[in-house]
Amino acid sequence: MKKISLLGSTGSIGIQTLDIIREHPDEFRLVAMSAGRNIDLVRKAITEFKPEYVSVQEKSGAETLKTEFPAVAFGFGPEGLEEAATFAKSDILVNAVLGSVGLSPTLKAIEAGKTIAIANKETLVTAGHLVMAAAKKYGVAILPVDSEHSAIYQALQGEKTKNIERLILTASGGSFRDRKREELRNVTVEEALNHPNWSMGAKITIDSATMMNKGLEVIEAHWLFSMPYEKISVLLHKESIIHSMVEFHDSSIVAQLGTPDMRVPIQYALTYPDRLPLPSGKRLNLAEIGKLHFTEMDYDRFRCLKFAYDAGRAGGSMPAVLNAANEAAVAAFLENQITFLEIEDLIQKVLDSHETISNPDLETIQKIDDETRQIVNSLL
Amino acid sequence: MKKISLLGSTGSIGIQTLDIIREHPDEFRLVAMSAGRNIDLVRKAITEFKPEYVSVQEKSGAETLKTEFPAVAFGFGPEGLEEAATFAKSDILVNAVLGSVGLSPTLKAIEAGKTIAIANKETLVTAGHLVMAAAKKYGVAILPVDSEHSAIYQALQGEKTKNIERLILTASGGSFRDRKREELRNVTVEEALNHPNWSMGAKITIDSATMMNKGLEVIEAHWLFSMPYEKISVLLHKESIIHSMVEFHDSSIVAQLGTPDMRVPIQYALTYPDRLPLPSGKRLNLAEIGKLHFTEMDYDRFRCLKFAYDAGRAGGSMPAVLNAANEAAVAAFLENQITFLEIEDLIQKVLDSHETISNPDLETIQKIDDETRQIVNSLL
Repeated sequence: MKKISLLGSTGSIGIQTLDIIREHPDEFRLVAMSAGRNIDLVRKAITEFKPEYVSVQEKSGAETLKTEFPAVAFGFGPEGLEEAATFAKSDILVNAVLGSVGLSPTLKAIEAGKTIAIANKETLVTAGHLVMAAAKKYGVAILPVDSEHSAIYQALQGEKTKNIERLILTASGGSFRDRKREELRNVTVEEALNHPNWSMGAKITIDSATMMNKGLEVIEAHWLFSMPYEKISVLLHKESIIHSMVEFHDSSIVAQLGTPDMRVPIQYALTYPDRLPLPSGKRLNLAEIGKLHFTEMDYDRFRCLKFAYDAGRAGGSMPAVLNAANEAAVAAFLENQITFLEIEDLIQKVLDSHETISNPDLETIQKIDDETRQIVNSLL
Repeated sequence: MKKISLLGSTGSIGIQTLDIIREHPDEFRLVAMSAGRNIDLVRKAITEFKPEYVSVQEKSGAETLKTEFPAVAFGFGPEGLEEAATFAKSDILVNAVLGSVGLSPTLKAIEAGKTIAIANKETLVTAGHLVMAAAKKYGVAILPVDSEHSAIYQALQGEKTKNIERLILTASGGSFRDRKREELRNVTVEEALNHPNWSMGAKITIDSATMMNKGLEVIEAHWLFSMPYEKISVLLHKESIIHSMVEFHDSSIVAQLGTPDMRVPIQYALTYPDRLPLPSGKRLNLAEIGKLHFTEMDYDRFRCLKFAYDAGRAGGSMPAVLNAANEAAVAAFLENQITFLEIEDLIQKVLDSHETISNPDLETIQKIDDETRQIVNSLL
């Protein structure tokens, strides 16, 4: 029986993590969880999964829930998040919280010796150097929850890092994959939110359309698999069936495939190094699909991917600037303050004006994150 | 330094095995080899690789070579083959000999504790029960050299057999993949020998066109991976880029991909569980290929595949009959004695008239092999 702490229980990944726990009551138990402001969903989750510790965003939410569930311990805010992440009885932390708030709980959980299943992008993008060093120091495994990184993790089982020629991340191309650059000038928020393959949150769907999502994944892959950027490539594959691949130096490629279902990588992280059945998972039928398509990546068409490689190579504080500038710009787009292509322009401006600080600590990263958002907002 | 015994050194797989040994002089040494009647090629191989033991088909060949290479030990015929297979200094036997003559040397090498890299189909098709039992008894690894089984072997690294949902062997469809059944009536030997993806020997190229090759691979996979036939499926994939796949019970599929180059699986068997660079190997460029196609297998179009499943399920002596009937029928086709579609008719007739003998020993298998060929020849 694996005991799970789940941060971000009411988001897309959080809800699917609860699905997996529900499907395997003899294998998994939810012992701690966090959520934001959706108290109704939290109430349902407590009733069904009976966690021992629950953290929400606001103190008032915690107080309301305490009167309804007196046997449960409650917390709130950043400290509540850390308490959920480091809850003594838990074996594994699933960090599916959105944004840079996910960073500190990951580091605390590593120090507490928990296995980490990481769905929070900021953790590795902005602080990969701190997280991987801590994971090494405390002998803790960092398991990816992203479908692409999970695919690579699966392809690498039983293989040696020294034999890797390159990692090949596949990219669907997002909502506008079939449009040329000049056709992106007047696209609407609604069009951008219409992803062809995956049903995800708004921010990540826009990131798919700009290809920033793949850029962030390149940086994550750099840290997760200790790979230099020249050994990480991106291939357009519109069906999102091959989730990613590893090429070895004997020219052999190992790939992981499946229908687009985030429960597969979530469950893999929870069962690793074993697997469990996923009876409700839709099996891949390649004959039914008929064809898989592959196209060379176009770095002029998808400028955000180029930004991410550049920021990753610059290292230090630059990926944190990339991430914060992107978050602020995407938020502005979603609120109709800027156009789709202005997302890229804004990010580029902010990256160009930043002087890289090498090896930043957690405090510096959070300061840079705040400053970058302010700069973006001042440019709107 | 791995020391290699190579049976079938002048065939397609044998020559490519020598290529691999040539590319890695610090890793591999050829200590023993066998060949048929091509004394010129043997002479060149002895000069280049300096094996200590060489076996050829005829006594006269061995005597001629002995006068030219007095420092080398020579043998001939079936005993020479066994001596090469069990040569004391060798660590691994690459069995790339054609036909049922490959069976006995494999068993002797297993008893001598050699690792087996198996390219000889008859070994597993006709005597899988004997070979796998012996491999278990003597704690010997049986490594596949076929691209399909190597793909599955690679996909299974770090995985547990209990988690396998099914093995998916891919099939190019062979020389006539785009023709309907009624268009096969008058095809010539030359047309049948024109395989779209792989350059191979005549027998295996015809077997690709009839799909018997995939049928024999299904039976091999059954033994190699201890998989029941209902967990082995075949998918048409005309590009031969995905060499095969494993589906796990969490719906995740792991596949191995590459350009069609037999040196990759040969080298993998020699380096397993490690990998070595293959600088001359052509790297796969999926963007250049653009599309991969997949089509449901049609068991009425490809009757030989159905025969193989049926023979595999019947078990006992039936796969030996399938194999011998096919060899004799293909030989008759190559000599223009029968038409392409009569290959199937002949095999079916012979299978229908055979009463399965369960758990046949080596002697029985060889007797059935002889008898089956005689029956086919009597039907011509």
